[in-house]
Amino acid sequence: MKAPTLGILGGGQLAKMTAQAASRLGVETTIVERTADCPARAVATHCIVGDWNDPAVALRLAAEVDVVTLESEFVELAVLRAIEASGRALFPSARTLALIQDKFAQKQTVASAGLPVADSVAVDSPDDVRKAGAEFGWPLVLKRRRNAYDGKGNATVRDPAGVAAAWTALSGGPGQLYVERFVPFAGELAVIVARGRDGRESVYPVVESVQREHICHEVVAPAPIDSEVAAQALAHARAAVAALDGVGAFGVELFATAAGRVLVNELAPRVHNSGHYSIEACVCSQFENHVRAVFGWPLGDPRLVTRAACMINLLGAGPGSGEPQGLAAALAVSGANVHVYGKRQSQHGRKMGHLTVVGDDVAEVRGRARRAAAAIVFGAAGAT
Amino acid sequence: MKAPTLGILGGGQLAKMTAQAASRLGVETTIVERTADCPARAVATHCIVGDWNDPAVALRLAAEVDVVTLESEFVELAVLRAIEASGRALFPSARTLALIQDKFAQKQTVASAGLPVADSVAVDSPDDVRKAGAEFGWPLVLKRRRNAYDGKGNATVRDPAGVAAAWTALSGGPGQLYVERFVPFAGELAVIVARGRDGRESVYPVVESVQREHICHEVVAPAPIDSEVAAQALAHARAAVAALDGVGAFGVELFATAAGRVLVNELAPRVHNSGHYSIEACVCSQFENHVRAVFGWPLGDPRLVTRAACMINLLGAGPGSGEPQGLAAALAVSGANVHVYGKRQSQHGRKMGHLTVVGDDVAEVRGRARRAAAAIVFGAAGAT
Repeated sequence: MKAPTLGILGGGQLAKMTAQAASRLGVETTIVERTADCPARAVATHCIVGDWNDPAVALRLAAEVDVVTLESEFVELAVLRAIEASGRALFPSARTLALIQDKFAQKQTVASAGLPVADSVAVDSPDDVRKAGAEFGWPLVLKRRRNAYDGKGNATVRDPAGVAAAWTALSGGPGQLYVERFVPFAGELAVIVARGRDGRESVYPVVESVQREHICHEVVAPAPIDSEVAAQALAHARAAVAALDGVGAFGVELFATAAGRVLVNELAPRVHNSGHYSIEACVCSQFENHVRAVFGWPLGDPRLVTRAACMINLLGAGPGSGEPQGLAAALAVSGANVHVYGKRQSQHGRKMGHLTVVGDDVAEVRGRARRAAAAIVFGAAGAT
Repeated sequence: MKAPTLGILGGGQLAKMTAQAASRLGVETTIVERTADCPARAVATHCIVGDWNDPAVALRLAAEVDVVTLESEFVELAVLRAIEASGRALFPSARTLALIQDKFAQKQTVASAGLPVADSVAVDSPDDVRKAGAEFGWPLVLKRRRNAYDGKGNATVRDPAGVAAAWTALSGGPGQLYVERFVPFAGELAVIVARGRDGRESVYPVVESVQREHICHEVVAPAPIDSEVAAQALAHARAAVAALDGVGAFGVELFATAAGRVLVNELAPRVHNSGHYSIEACVCSQFENHVRAVFGWPLGDPRLVTRAACMINLLGAGPGSGEPQGLAAALAVSGANVHVYGKRQSQHGRKMGHLTVVGDDVAEVRGRARRAAAAIVFGAAGAT
């Protein structure tokens, strides 16, 4: 007998934390990344240096492992299909990824499953945008259908006069963009759903996600919301992942409106920043459940082992070293679980690490988490 | 800036779990092990293949890292002293190890600090053993002073007639053995103490350790004992590590007598099997606190995040593959946190993995832990 082996397309922090969970279960990991100098290199058993979008590289990975998964939804479909055609298990599947990569198709699939989403329409020209504005009202949100994340590829358009500039800024063209009705949401929620090969699910608590500059900044578990709102969020998240026939851990982002309604915003077909708190706060983390799911093993318990948790992303303050300043000061804050990803270079806004604090009370854990986060700096603000 | 680097003499499961904790903090790890095919290989950043008792190998490690530590108390003193002479930080220190490796010296040091231990005396001949018996009464325990673990190197001698056979079985000779008064203990307790370079301590809860065939089999946290007994155990453990000027995580084994007295049995100058539960059950694990301690960083909170935890060792049933059978069945038990070490070969009684279950009630978590452990088999009983 040999150890089960997991291949991951990507070698960033999500691959690193997945490899750590895999290794605990005795699963060996091979990652593919453009440079060996990536966060997951230190904890993966093997590293293939290459471009995951090169079919030869991806097939070399597939030939070496039992199951292939990914840490990014931007892997080219042709590569995913080639892996499946080679007979290797790939989760989530190329079909699921196809539905997710095109955000407009994703939205249509979720809506077709009867789930509430913001109204949206595909647009092929600035004129189409103006027509949509006449229907949905202004402002509206213009979005790229593909390769958009962390607020990149989105623009809020205030009135018909702003359409042309937004169209140009997003490099609009036929089939490239879609329009979404502006949702004046009261809060952003997220739910991690791990779904097994057999369709069984492990659904994590609803968390509140606080964005800053369109990047997830702070996550509080459980979200401070009514149980009725939480129940909607859990049901929608579960149904959305099932509608996409997802296998593995999925991050489902949702909007809560002031009226207490919950809309599905979008899905990430992978472990997700909004689920990092689960490493310390849940019986079984999103990372271990992802590994269990893609291997077809029974899923673990997603419940909190603590009453409250707060996760804060540690973003680069500017260019500079990937080594933090102030680590010891952060560790001096009681209960600070600090994760340093091991990226070589800091850049402004780059995710360099995160930290989680658990405890009995949301306000109290948030206070400690913020104190610890304030002590750590990656890169120097204003440095060049 | 470059990442902090930790060197570990050894590449077994203790090194593996230490490397995992280090990697989370952004610390890179280099291990030294005789074979690259060891548990820590997959998660360490670098692996030096060689004998840690070869000074050239150990000095090569020391030259590559910021701090050196160890996962075994059996590293030769000359090697440890050479590392210190090279100017590299070594924790725990050669001086601490010298006091611990000779169990008789260890016992004398702990007793000199005013801590209760079983009466003991060094013996150079079978006659000395019989004299000790006349003083301590029979039965008594004959022990090797060095390189004894997991019940190896110990013999209970029932009467003067049994001395000669025990002497031979333990390869007795001048300076090799010592005698200990037999302690009819009611339970075995253990405490992990992490002690920083500055002498600050992080003291974990008292656990009960259940041995089977002289190997730690099951650990329950917190130990089901009176608060007065627990207070003695915590105070003794703390004082014992301080008496040895220990830096890093130490496992302190203690005996509780039926009368409610607590004696110090022995210390392991390293992360310890009785502290594995801390990965899931405590705010900061013994492994992370070991890393923090040897780097001189503030120590983490050792308190339980849950009311109860049970850890069970997964021992080889016989020779065979190091891959478990029944992993999926074990994962089907709610809350089973399974650790598979990734050893290539199983042997009867070899530590192949462990699992931990946390929850609200000791009896309940023990029940689930036993169900999960019963589902996993390493090697085949009776196989050759």
